[in-house]
Amino acid sequence: MADEIAQNSLDGIDLLAPLSPDERAAVARQCRWRRYAPQEQIIDRQSQNRDVYLVIKGSVRIVIYSLSGKELTLDDLGAGYYFGELAAIDGHPRSASVMALVETQVAVLPAEVFMRLVTTHEGMMHMLLKRLASMVRTSTDRIIDLSTLGANNRVHAELLRQARVAGIGDDGSAVLSPIPVHGDIASRVSTTRETVARVLNDLARQRLVRRDRDALVILDVEKLEEIVESVRGE
Amino acid sequence: MADEIAQNSLDGIDLLAPLSPDERAAVARQCRWRRYAPQEQIIDRQSQNRDVYLVIKGSVRIVIYSLSGKELTLDDLGAGYYFGELAAIDGHPRSASVMALVETQVAVLPAEVFMRLVTTHEGMMHMLLKRLASMVRTSTDRIIDLSTLGANNRVHAELLRQARVAGIGDDGSAVLSPIPVHGDIASRVSTTRETVARVLNDLARQRLVRRDRDALVILDVEKLEEIVESVRGE
Repeated sequence: MADEIAQNSLDGIDLLAPLSPDERAAVARQCRWRRYAPQEQIIDRQSQNRDVYLVIKGSVRIVIYSLSGKELTLDDLGAGYYFGELAAIDGHPRSASVMALVETQVAVLPAEVFMRLVTTHEGMMHMLLKRLASMVRTSTDRIIDLSTLGANNRVHAELLRQARVAGIGDDGSAVLSPIPVHGDIASRVSTTRETVARVLNDLARQRLVRRDRDALVILDVEKLEEIVESVRGE
Repeated sequence: MADEIAQNSLDGIDLLAPLSPDERAAVARQCRWRRYAPQEQIIDRQSQNRDVYLVIKGSVRIVIYSLSGKELTLDDLGAGYYFGELAAIDGHPRSASVMALVETQVAVLPAEVFMRLVTTHEGMMHMLLKRLASMVRTSTDRIIDLSTLGANNRVHAELLRQARVAGIGDDGSAVLSPIPVHGDIASRVSTTRETVARVLNDLARQRLVRRDRDALVILDVEKLEEIVESVRGE
C-alpha cells in the first residue's frame, strides 16, 4: 500500500515543485495513471486529445515519422519531465508522436487543469515559459545545423552535445555509456545509420574516439569542439 | 502634436489588446522609442540586452547569418507584432539577429516590465503562450522539411505557404504581389537563389506559375498542394 501511494505521487515532477505537498496530492487525484511497455505509443501525431503527460517513471521519445518511414527524434525525456503542453496551450492537433523507450509510467493531466495550474501559480508559469523558450532555441539550433552543416558535421555536433551532457573529465575525455545506438544518433541529426557508422570509424582512426565494451569514449572533447566550431562559426 | 501622440501609441500591438487604453498609455511611457532605416540591424545575435521590441510601423526580419555568410530567415514580422521575448523570459543571449526590412519604428520595453505585464494579465499570458507554441510548431515543421524534403520540394512548400497567406481565388489561383525575391525564398528554406530560379522556371514551363509585371501568379494551388503532400506525406 505504501508503495502504491509512493508510485502515485507527483513529488518528482519539476514543474509541480512550486506547489505544496497537499496541492500536489490534489493534482494527483485529478490525473489518470497509465503504464506503457517499451516501444508502445503514448501520443499519436495529429490526434485531437489535449492532455498533458507527466513522466513518473521511465523515459519517452518525442518523434516524427515521415512518409518514407524516416524517424526524426525531437527529444528524449526522462522521469520528472512533462510533454503534450503545446496542444493544451493552443488546442491544435499534436505536433509529434511520443513513444515509451522503456517500461514507463505517466500521470495524465487534463488540459484545463494544467492551464489553471500554470495561470494561478507564478512559479509554474515561469518554468513553463522557460521550457517553451528552450524548445524554440533548441529547434533554431537544429535548423541552423541542418541548413549549414553537412551530415558528417551534424554527427560531430551530436557527439559533442552528448559529451557535454555526460561531463568532461580532467584528462579532457568524456565517457558515453551505454554506447549510443547509431540509429538514435541518425534520428536526432536527420541522417542515416550508415553515415553515423562511417563518421565514428573515421573518428576512431583519428584517435578521437575509442569504443570500449560498454562505453564510447570521446578521447579529446576540445579537438571535437574545434572541428564543430570551425564549421558552425561559433 | 496630435500626430506625435498617435505615433507613440501602443494601440496597434495585439499583445497589449487586453489592457485598457490608460494601462497601454502607462506602458508606452515606460518604452524607449526608436527608428531604424531599411537593412539597419535592431538586435545583434549573442548580444546581452533583454528588452522586448514592439513593432509600431514597418517590418523586420528575424535572421541568422552563418560563418560562410549564408542568411537564414526565421520569420518576418510586421506592425502589431513583437520580438525579443525569449531573452526576456530566460535571460540568455539573443537566439537570432533582427533587422529592419523597411523604415521601421519600434517601442522598446524593458524585460522586467514585459514579464510583470504578462504575469499580471491572464489574457496577455495566453497570447504569449500561444505565440511560443506557434514558434515551436513552425520550427518543427521546418526541421521536418529540412530533414525529409529536397531543396526543390522545399521551394514548392514555401510557394504553397505564401499562396495560402495571399488567399486562393475561385479559379484556384493565388496572386503573390509584389513578386517574391528569389533570395528571400532561398533564405527561408535554406537553399540558394539559383535553385529557387530553376524551380520557378520549371513550374512556369509546367504552367503552374506565371510571372506578371508586378506579381507571381500560382495558377493551380491544388496541383502545387498535391506535389508537396505527395512528398511530405500529409
